[in-house]
Amino acid sequence: MSDLLQGITPTMLMGPGPSCVPDAVYKALAKPTIGHLDPYFVRIMDAIKEQLREVFHTQNALTMPMSGTGSSGMETCFVNLVEPGDKVLVLTNGVFGKRMQDVAGRLGAEVDALEITWGEPVLPDAVKAKLESQKYDIVGIVHAETSTGVCSPVDAIGKMVRDHGALLIMDCVTSLGGIPVDVDGWFVDAAYSGTQKCLSCPPGLSPITFGERALAKLKARKNKVPNWYLDLSLIASYWEGTTRTYHHTAPVNMEYALYAALKEILDEGQEKVFARHNAMHERLVSGLAALGMEMLVAKEYRLPMLNAVRIPDGVDEAAIRARLLKEFAIEIGSGLGPLAGKIWRIGIMGHTARPENIDRLLETLKKVL
Amino acid sequence: MSDLLQGITPTMLMGPGPSCVPDAVYKALAKPTIGHLDPYFVRIMDAIKEQLREVFHTQNALTMPMSGTGSSGMETCFVNLVEPGDKVLVLTNGVFGKRMQDVAGRLGAEVDALEITWGEPVLPDAVKAKLESQKYDIVGIVHAETSTGVCSPVDAIGKMVRDHGALLIMDCVTSLGGIPVDVDGWFVDAAYSGTQKCLSCPPGLSPITFGERALAKLKARKNKVPNWYLDLSLIASYWEGTTRTYHHTAPVNMEYALYAALKEILDEGQEKVFARHNAMHERLVSGLAALGMEMLVAKEYRLPMLNAVRIPDGVDEAAIRARLLKEFAIEIGSGLGPLAGKIWRIGIMGHTARPENIDRLLETLKKVL
Repeated sequence: MSDLLQGITPTMLMGPGPSCVPDAVYKALAKPTIGHLDPYFVRIMDAIKEQLREVFHTQNALTMPMSGTGSSGMETCFVNLVEPGDKVLVLTNGVFGKRMQDVAGRLGAEVDALEITWGEPVLPDAVKAKLESQKYDIVGIVHAETSTGVCSPVDAIGKMVRDHGALLIMDCVTSLGGIPVDVDGWFVDAAYSGTQKCLSCPPGLSPITFGERALAKLKARKNKVPNWYLDLSLIASYWEGTTRTYHHTAPVNMEYALYAALKEILDEGQEKVFARHNAMHERLVSGLAALGMEMLVAKEYRLPMLNAVRIPDGVDEAAIRARLLKEFAIEIGSGLGPLAGKIWRIGIMGHTARPENIDRLLETLKKVL
Repeated sequence: MSDLLQGITPTMLMGPGPSCVPDAVYKALAKPTIGHLDPYFVRIMDAIKEQLREVFHTQNALTMPMSGTGSSGMETCFVNLVEPGDKVLVLTNGVFGKRMQDVAGRLGAEVDALEITWGEPVLPDAVKAKLESQKYDIVGIVHAETSTGVCSPVDAIGKMVRDHGALLIMDCVTSLGGIPVDVDGWFVDAAYSGTQKCLSCPPGLSPITFGERALAKLKARKNKVPNWYLDLSLIASYWEGTTRTYHHTAPVNMEYALYAALKEILDEGQEKVFARHNAMHERLVSGLAALGMEMLVAKEYRLPMLNAVRIPDGVDEAAIRARLLKEFAIEIGSGLGPLAGKIWRIGIMGHTARPENIDRLLETLKKVL
């Protein structure tokens, strides 16, 4: 049988994820598999929990990667916290807010949404009005909307949600490791991320964190979590404590990779990593401006790592993307939903955020446009 | 920060999984990450589907790996097929049958179980009597019980379940790639496996297959699948057809590894792989007998790849396992549930099933016992 893997082209990943992976992470992936209950593996698990607490900025004991991709982290937060009949408010300004609504609805929640124009942020005043209109059990917010490149000010919203008595679930899939995320400081009760964005690890795991108030709701549930695989009351017995009880077989090599990816970030220093993302964002935006291209999002709400740029008039956007990938081994992303055909999404996440990568993209765009 | 990964000891994995991983699979894991919508990645996805059809022995179009470990495959089969109030019969002879009961119950099924002594197989006569006692919508069976080392004759049970009008869900986590699994020939409607047993790939993915009758039940559901992450009606739009619609970001590098692992099996030839497992099983059992040790399971129902051996009187089983791991870098498994402290579980799965490995274990056991 021929080996398809021989034909893989190393690609500069500048879409909405996955991002470029550093060599140390590839090396980690290929380390020898050991048992998921091996005491040495438990040491690695414990180290990952510590690393994740640093990037999430939290003291939460229950901070760990779920054995699935970023979306499994979303599912985890909702399935553990939502009980049928709960009132859930989703602050929706893109695909991933919509997805939260879908997930919560499937779990029997009464779902309400504050719908905001795609490309704009969720702002505190609108949230305040909504919270005052009725009582909610859970509020969902997307910190960094990957579909639009918008950053919403969770720092100005979290306290309001807590004062209102609701639990706050935050999607920080695209922001974690690229801009400050402060779970404890922002009064976030549960949060989830993914490995393949600013953590620069291949896709496959979803870091999550649950605070005391979230755990209290989980413990007080009338019925079992309707999802055995993602039931945190079971999984915690494997990831915490002195006796580790088998739940499922952890994705051992992916955990190695996550450990190595987090180590890269912490060794460089989070502040430096954030500054690098900002600097590369500015380099990209000014380069795009020089090519006559405009950003979708207002300056103050732009995510540095996910750049939504308006497609110039008369350009066949799909053809350009295909050419970039095929001729130049550069991947950029298309628009989704109402933004399909109107924007490209250029990701400069994690290891991708380097001057030579930005320059290579800009030079290539100049050629093909 | 020190690098914990430097301290990983290459270990001979002879527990209930993960198993030893061939070099080609480690190399595949470390191939450059490309996008989950890259046309070349879609080619790899399509190849994996073909490979999986070969090992599952099925023509089912919907045959693919779920983005989670083996237990996510179980969750997938049940959450897509069970509707509240469905009558589910689980044929339980170990941990993984018990787990099926738990999963189905959480989804609102009326769960009934045919409880069989752990260490014994599910036999057709008992199933027949149960099926005649009432009407069931779904029947669950574990082909290879990893907790006991028992193989149940699904080939003699599947047709009976179909004639009865129920759907059959089969767990073949431990059997797939080590002994014949014949999804179509055995009238299995949905099946799931894991990568870290006889496929000799690190843990992280769960191959599944759904037949026409299972898909018909999925399509006829009154309500959405109460699990967005594992909803096959959405996931199929990413894994099938000419337009691949983004659902979640596939675990790209784990898919490379699965491709390489399946290629190893298909290149060697499934019949040869099965014969190797049987030969190594006999080598192990006679070696254990020479050490005065007895098997738990009657000869005709023993799994070749998972050997439950009774712990000799007066042996501190946990201390021996710890010594094997620490001094000799050999992992074997403990007993679970009622068999805790009574058996060891010796896995000779996939790449582990080689004479030098069996001999190394036997020589080491001789030393430490």
